[in-house]
Amino acid sequence: MAMIAVVNGPNLNLLGSREPGIYGSRTWEEVKEELEGRAKELGLELEFFQSNHEGAIIDYLQGLHGRADGVVINPGALSHYGYSLRDALADMDIPKVEVHISNIYAREEWRKTSVVSPVVQGVISGLGTGGYLLALQAVALLLRRLE
Amino acid sequence: MAMIAVVNGPNLNLLGSREPGIYGSRTWEEVKEELEGRAKELGLELEFFQSNHEGAIIDYLQGLHGRADGVVINPGALSHYGYSLRDALADMDIPKVEVHISNIYAREEWRKTSVVSPVVQGVISGLGTGGYLLALQAVALLLRRLE
Amino acid sequence: MAMIAVVNGPNLNLLGSREPGIYGSRTWEEVKEELEGRAKELGLELEFFQSNHEGAIIDYLQGLHGRADGVVINPGALSHYGYSLRDALADMDIPKVEVHISNIYAREEWRKTSVVSPVVQGVISGLGTGGYLLALQAVALLLRRLE
Amino acid sequence: MAMIAVVNGPNLNLLGSREPGIYGSRTWEEVKEELEGRAKELGLELEFFQSNHEGAIIDYLQGLHGRADGVVINPGALSHYGYSLRDALADMDIPKVEVHISNIYAREEWRKTSVVSPVVQGVISGLGTGGYLLALQAVALLLRRLE
Amino acid sequence: MAMIAVVNGPNLNLLGSREPGIYGSRTWEEVKEELEGRAKELGLELEFFQSNHEGAIIDYLQGLHGRADGVVINPGALSHYGYSLRDALADMDIPKVEVHISNIYAREEWRKTSVVSPVVQGVISGLGTGGYLLALQAVALLLRRLE
Amino acid sequence: MAMIAVVNGPNLNLLGSREPGIYGSRTWEEVKEELEGRAKELGLELEFFQSNHEGAIIDYLQGLHGRADGVVINPGALSHYGYSLRDALADMDIPKVEVHISNIYAREEWRKTSVVSPVVQGVISGLGTGGYLLALQAVALLLRRLE
Amino acid sequence: MAMIAVVNGPNLNLLGSREPGIYGSRTWEEVKEELEGRAKELGLELEFFQSNHEGAIIDYLQGLHGRADGVVINPGALSHYGYSLRDALADMDIPKVEVHISNIYAREEWRKTSVVSPVVQGVISGLGTGGYLLALQAVALLLRRLE
Amino acid sequence: MAMIAVVNGPNLNLLGSREPGIYGSRTWEEVKEELEGRAKELGLELEFFQSNHEGAIIDYLQGLHGRADGVVINPGALSHYGYSLRDALADMDIPKVEVHISNIYAREEWRKTSVVSPVVQGVISGLGTGGYLLALQAVALLLRRLE
Amino acid sequence: MAMIAVVNGPNLNLLGSREPGIYGSRTWEEVKEELEGRAKELGLELEFFQSNHEGAIIDYLQGLHGRADGVVINPGALSHYGYSLRDALADMDIPKVEVHISNIYAREEWRKTSVVSPVVQGVISGLGTGGYLLALQAVALLLRRLE
Amino acid sequence: MAMIAVVNGPNLNLLGSREPGIYGSRTWEEVKEELEGRAKELGLELEFFQSNHEGAIIDYLQGLHGRADGVVINPGALSHYGYSLRDALADMDIPKVEVHISNIYAREEWRKTSVVSPVVQGVISGLGTGGYLLALQAVALLLRRLE
Amino acid sequence: MAMIAVVNGPNLNLLGSREPGIYGSRTWEEVKEELEGRAKELGLELEFFQSNHEGAIIDYLQGLHGRADGVVINPGALSHYGYSLRDALADMDIPKVEVHISNIYAREEWRKTSVVSPVVQGVISGLGTGGYLLALQAVALLLRRLE
Amino acid sequence: MAMIAVVNGPNLNLLGSREPGIYGSRTWEEVKEELEGRAKELGLELEFFQSNHEGAIIDYLQGLHGRADGVVINPGALSHYGYSLRDALADMDIPKVEVHISNIYAREEWRKTSVVSPVVQGVISGLGTGGYLLALQAVALLLRRLE
Repeated sequence: MAMIAVVNGPNLNLLGSREPGIYGSRTWEEVKEELEGRAKELGLELEFFQSNHEGAIIDYLQGLHGRADGVVINPGALSHYGYSLRDALADMDIPKVEVHISNIYAREEWRKTSVVSPVVQGVISGLGTGGYLLALQAVALLLRRLE
Repeated sequence: MAMIAVVNGPNLNLLGSREPGIYGSRTWEEVKEELEGRAKELGLELEFFQSNHEGAIIDYLQGLHGRADGVVINPGALSHYGYSLRDALADMDIPKVEVHISNIYAREEWRKTSVVSPVVQGVISGLGTGGYLLALQAVALLLRRLE
Repeated sequence: MAMIAVVNGPNLNLLGSREPGIYGSRTWEEVKEELEGRAKELGLELEFFQSNHEGAIIDYLQGLHGRADGVVINPGALSHYGYSLRDALADMDIPKVEVHISNIYAREEWRKTSVVSPVVQGVISGLGTGGYLLALQAVALLLRRLE
Repeated sequence: MAMIAVVNGPNLNLLGSREPGIYGSRTWEEVKEELEGRAKELGLELEFFQSNHEGAIIDYLQGLHGRADGVVINPGALSHYGYSLRDALADMDIPKVEVHISNIYAREEWRKTSVVSPVVQGVISGLGTGGYLLALQAVALLLRRLE
Repeated sequence: MAMIAVVNGPNLNLLGSREPGIYGSRTWEEVKEELEGRAKELGLELEFFQSNHEGAIIDYLQGLHGRADGVVINPGALSHYGYSLRDALADMDIPKVEVHISNIYAREEWRKTSVVSPVVQGVISGLGTGGYLLALQAVALLLRRLE
Repeated sequence: MAMIAVVNGPNLNLLGSREPGIYGSRTWEEVKEELEGRAKELGLELEFFQSNHEGAIIDYLQGLHGRADGVVINPGALSHYGYSLRDALADMDIPKVEVHISNIYAREEWRKTSVVSPVVQGVISGLGTGGYLLALQAVALLLRRLE
Repeated sequence: MAMIAVVNGPNLNLLGSREPGIYGSRTWEEVKEELEGRAKELGLELEFFQSNHEGAIIDYLQGLHGRADGVVINPGALSHYGYSLRDALADMDIPKVEVHISNIYAREEWRKTSVVSPVVQGVISGLGTGGYLLALQAVALLLRRLE
Repeated sequence: MAMIAVVNGPNLNLLGSREPGIYGSRTWEEVKEELEGRAKELGLELEFFQSNHEGAIIDYLQGLHGRADGVVINPGALSHYGYSLRDALADMDIPKVEVHISNIYAREEWRKTSVVSPVVQGVISGLGTGGYLLALQAVALLLRRLE
Repeated sequence: MAMIAVVNGPNLNLLGSREPGIYGSRTWEEVKEELEGRAKELGLELEFFQSNHEGAIIDYLQGLHGRADGVVINPGALSHYGYSLRDALADMDIPKVEVHISNIYAREEWRKTSVVSPVVQGVISGLGTGGYLLALQAVALLLRRLE
Repeated sequence: MAMIAVVNGPNLNLLGSREPGIYGSRTWEEVKEELEGRAKELGLELEFFQSNHEGAIIDYLQGLHGRADGVVINPGALSHYGYSLRDALADMDIPKVEVHISNIYAREEWRKTSVVSPVVQGVISGLGTGGYLLALQAVALLLRRLE
Repeated sequence: MAMIAVVNGPNLNLLGSREPGIYGSRTWEEVKEELEGRAKELGLELEFFQSNHEGAIIDYLQGLHGRADGVVINPGALSHYGYSLRDALADMDIPKVEVHISNIYAREEWRKTSVVSPVVQGVISGLGTGGYLLALQAVALLLRRLE
Repeated sequence: MAMIAVVNGPNLNLLGSREPGIYGSRTWEEVKEELEGRAKELGLELEFFQSNHEGAIIDYLQGLHGRADGVVINPGALSHYGYSLRDALADMDIPKVEVHISNIYAREEWRKTSVVSPVVQGVISGLGTGGYLLALQAVALLLRRLE
């Protein structure tokens, strides 16, 4: 059974309480449950990880080698300056999809560019926490293409 | 039954034959069929439109008023300079999702910025023609939120 | 009797319904009527044209050759990238006045620069639909200067 | 009877003699007379002020509080760097219209941006000294809207 | 017999009357005649197309598939922002040569960059309407190389 | 007894009435009183100056030579372009602290850079009219360091 | 009793030994003692935290929720690229004051912009370690305003 | 006898005491005396003016009309933003030479560009107070050319 | 008989061996022979010059005064920074055509701008060594226009 | 015996497996062995450290105070945004040499600038893992100069 | 007797014939004669040098070591990109004055910045060939200061 | 026996006397001797070349074809604008290492970018004249890799 890692960057542990106008009111627990349900349907196993430390996310991603078949990642604000994270993702040759809860292209100038986007297969932005669900399907899609 | 317009901009009528290394080898007919199938499951009706004329796309979008409940749009290269198209989209108050077949953030500098993105709800990029399917689901998701 | 063409670019056919907070609530029919009244007083004949197609506006402007004595033009979003329109206007040697309903200098960065402004005689911006009336007078003024 | 202040910035006292190719040959006295005539028709009282000192213009504008109902202002070269003037104008909640005799968008790069434009209602540029007349009407128009 | 399409963009239908100081005084009819003569010598057939609509030029270029062996194109002002036209040209795998009547590198800043140039084989600029003749020879040259 | 000059630039005479949402509702008289009280405690004498004229502020600062021991200055909008003021301050070798009532780093792009900041010892921004009090203490602190 | 967190970013643990010409010669222990004294007078409790890890500072700030009433923060070099830290601060709805020991506006170009400044209430820069004392008072001031 | 106005901008009244490392130790009185001597030799009359107010310098320059035959001007920091001063100088059709005591091209970035330079005949920079003497000769030279 | 100078800049002596993928495999000897043949047909005499020294090319161009009737020049990499060469060309009032073997607009960013282009009549780029032939004809064309 | 710390930043623990086309195929173990050999010859002791955490590298560098005599550092992607790391290095007054395995000046735009370079003595880039060996010698060289 | 080298860069050998509208009609021989006359009065010996080769100018400047007491240099277009020339001048510790015949600050954008200016004592621009005379005096002035 | 060319650009012939604070006090003769010694150990033959002429360096590099096995080059200031030199180096397919005596990344803005770096294998900067020694070893290293 293929395993997909779902990775959240800085401040995303506050989902549900953090600026609900921008990030929605569903908690991460609710989102997770929905994702688990969908994963079961798609015959995928999920593993969740969150950290406020860029280094810890890189450690985690390196540890996925030989263990994970795909990655769904919301790098939070690291999207905009985390070049080390970018290099870690570039080193992985499995399908990677980047998610942003809010529409980053409609916000502050610096938030419009993700240094991570050029090294992932796909980007999904602005569709709320529903974006994780779509990203999961996208990874499934990309895996099917590789078979 | 809610109606969703699926709109393609310049050169997207060539799908299947156009630079297959970048845009994939599925023809638009095949993509359409898949979308129709998924729409039926979601209880949505689809209408397709393609044009190489920015003006014709604007005419079409204006004509959707009171008739469509959501829009999936791939503006092609108009994404990068079509400010008139942007204004036409900004004038519509139904869910709008932008799709790009290739990962525009991993290509030429000018292709990395879409002037349309700030006026749509969500953006899906780099997931091939499968991106239309995800966009359709995204619109469904946004419609459900409005209910 | 001198003839003045009043030309509107993309999305301006929606006047009255389009973002009334920005563009006001008067419909184009009401504006037109007011313009016709004023034109009669000034001894001018008016001709109206609107299109969402840059090409169609250029076709129309070229066709005015030898027929029109002045132009009032609101290029809509084409103001910001329509270099072909700019060239068409530059080719006309009759008085040309550019109008913007909203104050474009107080809006998004890209909306602050009109590529058309350098080839017209005058620019009137931010005075609502009343700006057309002022533009008409401006053209009358410029015509008088040429006599 | 509503009072409108007509304010001119640096070097505009030389009107008529200053670079006639750009600024026209009518003296300020002639322009004033025309404005007075039009004001009478519109039921408006006018007050004129000119200074080469940014500080003096700000002093004057502050002194208009409770006394003036509208402002027509041609800030001259202060348009391009007079942020203090801009703040003074932003503090006034009566209709304000900016005038430029020449078409500033068709001249030197630095002259194309007015730091004052974002805090006035409307901008009229390039229509010669006739622009003051149009600006006066514009203020009348804006006042009528407030009634 | 190889067929070469000679395509002109916006405002180039006015050749002969349009700013003769910049574009010369020969009409398009005279240029065409000269081109036809040269084509006959080179054993080439010519087809001419002009439009003020970017969309129409793209429609036309797509329709050349399987029918044309080379393209001479003067995109007019579309050169500077017509990314959809660029994509249409990029999709064609026959020799393409871009022509500019005036020397675009000696004019306004924005006119110095052609977004089309990176996807054609060659660029000829500043040699008046004679540039079409040279472009025709250039296409002939490129075709010979492919044999 | 050491003397500290408290200097205000353009439009700051309107404190209390000017955009209260940004600048607070305390009048300058109230702020002054508070400052006087605090100065007495610190054994400092205060002198107040305000002008809308950059030149007048420079005249005043030059006149402080040999008379003042420190300066608290809020240059208002001159902060962003008043290079002459900057040079006048650079010429003074007594402690100088710059105050901004609003948080200038959270406002318009041009308001984020103060050309004066590089030639003062310290900057205090965003703490309302209380910032003057803190600046006074800062000057006291800097004077003590010099003893 | 209100609690204020005093947070220091990377390299600020070296205070006293680190480039004394720029950062002064007082050790952090001495500064702390002074702050404790002042806090007692103001009826405030202090908690100190320093880390060289952006992630650890974010963890700490998140943990302050419901426990702290204000924050004094010197983000060190994170000021200039720590967008994750910025987001963590933006998520906190208690008074926040940013301190810089040196005058960052008088140093290297990149050090002149703090990405954190737009999400705090106030900024105090260049007043040496005395800046912490002023920041403490500033937070007290802001708390009083909320009462 | 031809009359030359020697004009100094903001802070130049402090010559001799102001940053002697940069501006030299000669007072303005000494420079003036030397200039008077040289003027006598060249058969020129001199008039001196200094102000910290941009407006006052413009008033003075306008008053020179019909009275002065040349201008030597050191605009001080106004060189870098005084567009109103620039326009006043542009309006004068007598020889104008700009002087800078220090080498402005070897100092801060913003000090390297003078907005006044494009409207004067010549610029002399970096030669200390001796630069005024050279500028005087330069004006004499330019006058001779006009004879 | 009119004489045309054919001038090559740095590294173009290596033609045939230098990066054949970009510059083609024909040697300069072969190109020359072809040019001589065509020149004879056009009744033109040719003179060839190549140097790796900007100074030597300028010396050569100056020496053409009164001797040459036209110039075909490929400045090599000097195109991108050789302002002295540009000035030398600007000083010549005979027809000048610039050639680039590769399509410089499709290569590195810095290679896209030629500082020489604004001072020649025409530019031919991307057509391989055949570009010299076209340039020769272009010069012939320009000479005929002068007759 | 002098001690040299050899420090590696994010993702450099993957040496040997990570993009071998760019980073070579030798593992870090092999490189280390070679370095140990060379160090023995030079009479130097080595200590190795790697982390994916910027904070951990700073902690480590601070801990070297009084213990290390030189540093060889490859900051990985932190080179391009790690201003905290930069400050930590700036605080150390022992010889520091920066190494990059690939030639960073021949890669992506953002990878061409190292914010760390201005605070180290030397930089060695593009020489593969052999660069560490050269850096070791460079530190030895710098130490000898200090003796 | 002090020796001053007068150095001219590329294309300045054409003085008198080169674009007389910009560079005047006096030949270099006439200028030289005037300079010799003035030098005699000032007790200075002159040596003249001109080259179109940056390298030759550097060779010459290096050869002046121990032989020349001052330099007057007009680098021509090398002013704008000749960094090697700049370094050669920076290595000389005698007075250096840069001359430009035309007012470079009133011409093309790229001509407004001289990379040489920061390493000379003074700059004289726009005063025609008379500028050499003033530069000679300026060097005399600087030498006197050193005595 | 492999031959390595050691090439120095403009002003590097002055080594030992030129700004010793930046470039060290060893003469080129001493450096050369050290290099010869090391070359002998490595079984390499050296050839030295220096010129102040970009063209001469290119001539020399072209002449190395078939004769040299590696290049150590310090282009001096040509590093920052010598695109012709860059092309000459790009044309050579033997190991090339660029050396800078000073740390160019810690100096003026324009000195931080070398246009040559992208076409060499490695760059060594800031290690004084010892950098040549390291570069020699680097070339040896690169040669060994090719065997």
